[in-house]
Amino acid sequence: MYNFRNDYSEGAHPNILQKLIETNLQQQPGYGEDEYSLQAKQILQQKIENDDAAIYFVSGGTQTNLLVISALLKIHEAVISANTGHIFSHETGAIEAVGHRIITVESSNGKLQPEAIQNVLKEYTLRPHVVKPRMVYISNATEIGSIYNKAELFELSAFCKENNLLLFMDGARLGNALMAENSDVSLADISQLTDVFYIGGTKNGALLGEAIVFNNQSLAPEFDYVLKQKGALLAKGRLLGIQFLELFKDNLYFQLANHANTMGKKIADAVNECGYLFLTDPVTNQIFPILPKKVIVQLETKYLFYQWKEIDAENTAIRLITSWATNEEIVNEFITDLKEASYIDK
Amino acid sequence: MYNFRNDYSEGAHPNILQKLIETNLQQQPGYGEDEYSLQAKQILQQKIENDDAAIYFVSGGTQTNLLVISALLKIHEAVISANTGHIFSHETGAIEAVGHRIITVESSNGKLQPEAIQNVLKEYTLRPHVVKPRMVYISNATEIGSIYNKAELFELSAFCKENNLLLFMDGARLGNALMAENSDVSLADISQLTDVFYIGGTKNGALLGEAIVFNNQSLAPEFDYVLKQKGALLAKGRLLGIQFLELFKDNLYFQLANHANTMGKKIADAVNECGYLFLTDPVTNQIFPILPKKVIVQLETKYLFYQWKEIDAENTAIRLITSWATNEEIVNEFITDLKEASYIDK
Amino acid sequence: MYNFRNDYSEGAHPNILQKLIETNLQQQPGYGEDEYSLQAKQILQQKIENDDAAIYFVSGGTQTNLLVISALLKIHEAVISANTGHIFSHETGAIEAVGHRIITVESSNGKLQPEAIQNVLKEYTLRPHVVKPRMVYISNATEIGSIYNKAELFELSAFCKENNLLLFMDGARLGNALMAENSDVSLADISQLTDVFYIGGTKNGALLGEAIVFNNQSLAPEFDYVLKQKGALLAKGRLLGIQFLELFKDNLYFQLANHANTMGKKIADAVNECGYLFLTDPVTNQIFPILPKKVIVQLETKYLFYQWKEIDAENTAIRLITSWATNEEIVNEFITDLKEASYIDK
Amino acid sequence: MYNFRNDYSEGAHPNILQKLIETNLQQQPGYGEDEYSLQAKQILQQKIENDDAAIYFVSGGTQTNLLVISALLKIHEAVISANTGHIFSHETGAIEAVGHRIITVESSNGKLQPEAIQNVLKEYTLRPHVVKPRMVYISNATEIGSIYNKAELFELSAFCKENNLLLFMDGARLGNALMAENSDVSLADISQLTDVFYIGGTKNGALLGEAIVFNNQSLAPEFDYVLKQKGALLAKGRLLGIQFLELFKDNLYFQLANHANTMGKKIADAVNECGYLFLTDPVTNQIFPILPKKVIVQLETKYLFYQWKEIDAENTAIRLITSWATNEEIVNEFITDLKEASYIDK
Repeated sequence: MYNFRNDYSEGAHPNILQKLIETNLQQQPGYGEDEYSLQAKQILQQKIENDDAAIYFVSGGTQTNLLVISALLKIHEAVISANTGHIFSHETGAIEAVGHRIITVESSNGKLQPEAIQNVLKEYTLRPHVVKPRMVYISNATEIGSIYNKAELFELSAFCKENNLLLFMDGARLGNALMAENSDVSLADISQLTDVFYIGGTKNGALLGEAIVFNNQSLAPEFDYVLKQKGALLAKGRLLGIQFLELFKDNLYFQLANHANTMGKKIADAVNECGYLFLTDPVTNQIFPILPKKVIVQLETKYLFYQWKEIDAENTAIRLITSWATNEEIVNEFITDLKEASYIDK
Repeated sequence: MYNFRNDYSEGAHPNILQKLIETNLQQQPGYGEDEYSLQAKQILQQKIENDDAAIYFVSGGTQTNLLVISALLKIHEAVISANTGHIFSHETGAIEAVGHRIITVESSNGKLQPEAIQNVLKEYTLRPHVVKPRMVYISNATEIGSIYNKAELFELSAFCKENNLLLFMDGARLGNALMAENSDVSLADISQLTDVFYIGGTKNGALLGEAIVFNNQSLAPEFDYVLKQKGALLAKGRLLGIQFLELFKDNLYFQLANHANTMGKKIADAVNECGYLFLTDPVTNQIFPILPKKVIVQLETKYLFYQWKEIDAENTAIRLITSWATNEEIVNEFITDLKEASYIDK
Repeated sequence: MYNFRNDYSEGAHPNILQKLIETNLQQQPGYGEDEYSLQAKQILQQKIENDDAAIYFVSGGTQTNLLVISALLKIHEAVISANTGHIFSHETGAIEAVGHRIITVESSNGKLQPEAIQNVLKEYTLRPHVVKPRMVYISNATEIGSIYNKAELFELSAFCKENNLLLFMDGARLGNALMAENSDVSLADISQLTDVFYIGGTKNGALLGEAIVFNNQSLAPEFDYVLKQKGALLAKGRLLGIQFLELFKDNLYFQLANHANTMGKKIADAVNECGYLFLTDPVTNQIFPILPKKVIVQLETKYLFYQWKEIDAENTAIRLITSWATNEEIVNEFITDLKEASYIDK
Repeated sequence: MYNFRNDYSEGAHPNILQKLIETNLQQQPGYGEDEYSLQAKQILQQKIENDDAAIYFVSGGTQTNLLVISALLKIHEAVISANTGHIFSHETGAIEAVGHRIITVESSNGKLQPEAIQNVLKEYTLRPHVVKPRMVYISNATEIGSIYNKAELFELSAFCKENNLLLFMDGARLGNALMAENSDVSLADISQLTDVFYIGGTKNGALLGEAIVFNNQSLAPEFDYVLKQKGALLAKGRLLGIQFLELFKDNLYFQLANHANTMGKKIADAVNECGYLFLTDPVTNQIFPILPKKVIVQLETKYLFYQWKEIDAENTAIRLITSWATNEEIVNEFITDLKEASYIDK
């Protein structure tokens, strides 16, 4: 059985493992003060074109989200998120556990628009009987594979500034967003248009690791304390530094995201050719084809994937995720199997 | 400069890196459900001789401590620790940040005795104006290199049971404790005599990783939620599973701890031969020789270590830490340099 | 201007003030151990027909809610509430601030039905990536004046038991609910059908005060610690005890609630006579008449009340609240003014 | 039995009850926006000679402490307190429950000096592995009856400013401190020399109530949210406003504190006359005579008080607390009984 359920089924890109071996016995300072981490941060500052950024490496997405939000919000402040947002839907109350409400907004495409945020601000005016909305959390790519274009980010950014809201982008799949065919956004744009964001490594070639970027170092000058307090400061921080060094010193990060997207696109094209539709526009490495149930049953004999949402008595949307590690031969095989099942079904 | 400051200056034992490479492209379920983690847990259950134990792998010691304590204590309950305890002295208020007081007890040797705990219980009786002591936190080896023997653990365990206190052992350096020359304690003893403990990997050959062991699975039946909520559940849990598998499938863990201790012992013997004393008895991989300041100045030209505590105008206790990765040739060189400096000083 | 905005515009029922004066210089133990508190608890146990209940007096509703919820839920557990629920809409994130998510359910009438809760349970199954629903919070009367009948409570209670959910009733306006014309529920029923509830004093004749009732004292055997920790334990607990003693020793509590409801009914009848409708059925002391805007403008020259919701270009629902202290003469005057404005409008 | 155990055994000063009756049926806005609260705040601003102060009324001391500390500290910051400080010794972990460590300092007289704080700062330098000390908490009068003079406060204040520490004074017994014979401190001094303090009402004539004073309103501009979130905002805030109005409009507050101190002094003088010593200098309404155990046994037949600390086989220090309500006749009787018991003992 080949697994299309997620983008963390394999280990790390071989270059990373190779570098771990090469550097293994070099003695280094602990807690992120190692030379690899320092170098990786420098390279990232160049990639995002922002010398004023403060960068920290941590282990995972939920950890990142609770660190950033607990460091930036006062105790009576809240964060606004799409109802599909990872902090609301898949993090076991991590944000509430550090004391903050997540104010959710219905979103059919996983994205937030200024209008929806404006409605929240109107709803939350009865001071002091309500929390104070102070941050907007968005994901790019979103949890359902959609992406923000530059105009949308620009508009969101301006709206947040006008309304004294911090803009935080969850970039667990930022590589996939930036490398999407229809993307007009660069890492430097992200750095300019958000207050804080993170660059996800775990889902794009690393064993583990996310790079938190505060675009202005005055935003969280004592974030190091928070890292340690929440159990996020690794003794062997080199493990994170080495990975981001490998991922960014030669643009490996973008190549890997591109591969994942390309594999997704290949499958999406085949879905199209078979005459099937999608739940959401397939632009990154997460695609949601709507297939006849009979076809799904057939595919499930060889492939693992989630049935995402029943559409009607005959059809269901499934979720397929490709990654940096997805084998193109197996993608080809999947396409063949899909076409065959589709042919039989008709 | 060779670094004797800590036991996390290098990467991982080569076997671990080798296994990461071998298994790298095997697709595995995420979040700790991979086959390596499952296998590692089985092996650990055998090593601790306790089929009823529930085992979880996480990234680091502070994370472990806050997870265990927040999962087991009610909101008005507190944990008792030596004032040298890591949770009190080096974790940036991680335990208070999850809502609990650490009640500290003065301890000259880093260890806790029933008598001291009894005094705390007497002090904390003015219910409901005081917190309720509910857990005892000990470290083995302690933060200053001392260890508990079986009689001490037995007595502590009995005292805790009588007084409705949970006994939690921080085993960041458990390997070093168990492999100390004068130790009469086994992993199985630890499992029998504590309620919960952890086996530290980060400081004994792993890139990162601690194994939390609840000795009775009914103690924290919903700990998986807590792991996720606190950001401790790695998507690629295989990284932790593989490491513990390598460390424990053939007793590598104990060999590595033994090497660290042996290197420490070698230096300690040389210190003895030079006629110097120790701040605390040198039994594990942390030793605290009291050296003339002139000797220290000399050693500092080639080696990194902490000056721990000034003893008098002429002498200071230093801390030297050896590890699984400590190079024996350098230890020999250090001994030569020590003897030379000592000779000149006299 | 006469204020119909809320039921806490005046002080306390005169009997209470009288009793405060009579007992003023009697020395009493502090922290709720005074004889008035003990006596009031005994009387309440009789009224709810439950000797096994554990009762605590505190200052206000938000305080009550955060105390009960933080005492009963584990850190990964959540509470389910109608989106109109006070804990979600008017308590500044008090529940999130003690670490718990409020899972909201859309409700048009302010009430929760098993079906809606069942949907939440279905949504929150992806353990451990989601919180665990563990408590159901309902208000009676609800925040929009509706009440639960016995059959509804019975059904909810059974559903909660089957699904391992605690049922918590916010009784800030419990007196008004119980004394509603169409109510078939008694205090004893509430005690039997919920796990924990509170009897609101602040909005029914007291200066301040809510009585928290755990219907089974084994539910929160160490609640006294929590009271103190959250700053809810008054040194002069007598102030709360005396009030509940006065309110319950001769059924004053019910008489006061009845007066409030009767005043509401009088106005509601007049609204009916004028041919106007209501946003929700007027059964307690909160009524929501839908009036022509012109009529509203007229009434606003003499009375304070909230415009609750615009219905259409011509009409708006307003909220009128009556209380134990509402002056019947002014109610009569209001009715006259309403009829006059209504007449002119037609 | 007459109770000298504490200063909250009686109700409120009669003027307060009288005013509650007079104003009882005046309709007022809720949540502290009533005219009595507004007027009381104005009067307090005059008394402390600080128009820039922001004042809030709340119910009790533990509540005050947790509100102030949680509003002012960031999540990685800690508060320094004497080990006798109320926040450490008698508040059930209220401060840790909102996430902050209390760093304690041994103090024989209940007071903090700059030198002790300086030692804490030296100890807490290993950023980011330790919390950041950010606030100094002192009590005046202290928990053992001692007081700060102006020079001490001046020195503390200067030290805190130099070291970026906020100075917070717990004034649960501030009246007693200011009215002590040897006091050279005024309310205006307190306002100038601290960042935030509170004026205790509960122990000096009120039913309940403490006035929190931020001496600079920019210090906590959104404190209203915190009040509500922690359950501290009373619907009938008038109850607190009326009390502070009565206590301060004509200096009743100071007269009541003076009475309490005078009663304490009377007993202290008698203790002196009998030739007995004190555990701490008797300057406020808490005195700690060291009496022969036989004398204590005798007194215990008629009076309630705490045995504070055994001094030797023959003698024990007891604690006697007088208050605004202490009856002078009974004080005289107590003195007679003391002298008689003392005479017999000799």
